Amino acid sequence: MSTPIDFYFDFSSPYGYFAAVEIDKLAAKYGRSVNWHPILLGPIFKALGTNSLVTIPVKGDYSRHDMERTARFHNIFYKAPSQFPIGTQVAARATLWVQQTQPAKAADLIKTLYSAYFTEDIDISVPENVLRIAADNGIDRAALETALGTPELKEQLRAATEAAGKAGVFGSPFMIVDGEPFWGFDRFTQLEAFLKNGKI
Amino acid sequence: MSTPIDFYFDFSSPYGYFAAVEIDKLAAKYGRSVNWHPILLGPIFKALGTNSLVTIPVKGDYSRHDMERTARFHNIFYKAPSQFPIGTQVAARATLWVQQTQPAKAADLIKTLYSAYFTEDIDISVPENVLRIAADNGIDRAALETALGTPELKEQLRAATEAAGKAGVFGSPFMIVDGEPFWGFDRFTQLEAFLKNGKI
Repeated sequence: MSTPIDFYFDFSSPYGYFAAVEIDKLAAKYGRSVNWHPILLGPIFKALGTNSLVTIPVKGDYSRHDMERTARFHNIFYKAPSQFPIGTQVAARATLWVQQTQPAKAADLIKTLYSAYFTEDIDISVPENVLRIAADNGIDRAALETALGTPELKEQLRAATEAAGKAGVFGSPFMIVDGEPFWGFDRFTQLEAFLKNGKI
Repeated sequence: MSTPIDFYFDFSSPYGYFAAVEIDKLAAKYGRSVNWHPILLGPIFKALGTNSLVTIPVKGDYSRHDMERTARFHNIFYKAPSQFPIGTQVAARATLWVQQTQPAKAADLIKTLYSAYFTEDIDISVPENVLRIAADNGIDRAALETALGTPELKEQLRAATEAAGKAGVFGSPFMIVDGEPFWGFDRFTQLEAFLKNGKI
């Protein structure tokens, strides 16, 4: 039995979105499943003294162009959101809660949230939008709303982000399979070679 | 007549080295030539408030691993240098001078310098090593040594780096073709699509 691919992502990451669109197909091709890990890049960037790409002069402009171009190159539907980047605590916490309470619905919720933000310009930093999308995905809205207000869920996301940092995660998307780390959607070709051959 | 590919690189950049190994073949395949632009990333990073990847905790370790893996993946001979990163002023100035005085020898000199550093662990921040490699490539050692001591050549590299920054270059390798910018060896697939189709 092959081990799963650990897939770390922040909901505000366009390259994380592209990878989220493609990872299930890639995993299935090589008999793997996907462990989805929503994390917050903010605390990780802070700990390392790094910054979001898009906040850096020149590099930020290039990156916005590269995101659009990369989407076209891979035939992935993408529309740059008007609010970007955004806080993704609510979306990440909602995902964690669904993973714990209704795991079968979690991957679809992740993809719907990503797609809402990166193709429909729905601001998923707004709790009401996350709740509506969750409800549309068959999740009990009231129960989720209650869970989002608890300190336990906040602590779980904090701990999950800390654990990711300890595992060497410093960006999104970040994939770890059989101990081998891959950072970025542009490492999917190497990830695929590794899945195929067991080494690079 | 197709316009050339502007290829910007720093001699201390492993991904710049990988790209330097591959760019001529890619350019020739689509009827393009290559304009080689040696630059110094130091002043560019300073202006943007960014840093060399390898100096960042965690990310640096990953990057070193990724460089080895990327070399294997592309079947490029690579041996991580014991001194890294290094100052590349002398190598870049020597290249500029050869481009001006004996342009036919410049591309070979660039590739030999890169290969010396990234496959033979020869520290090309040491002027003596650059002079010896240049002489091995049929370049007049004494004339080059004299040129390296002139303020004019230093100013030319400073101006070339500044011009690159103004053209939007913020990393190595950086390719610009028909106004379209590509950052990183991992954008060669998109660069190739652009060369092939004239757009992405």
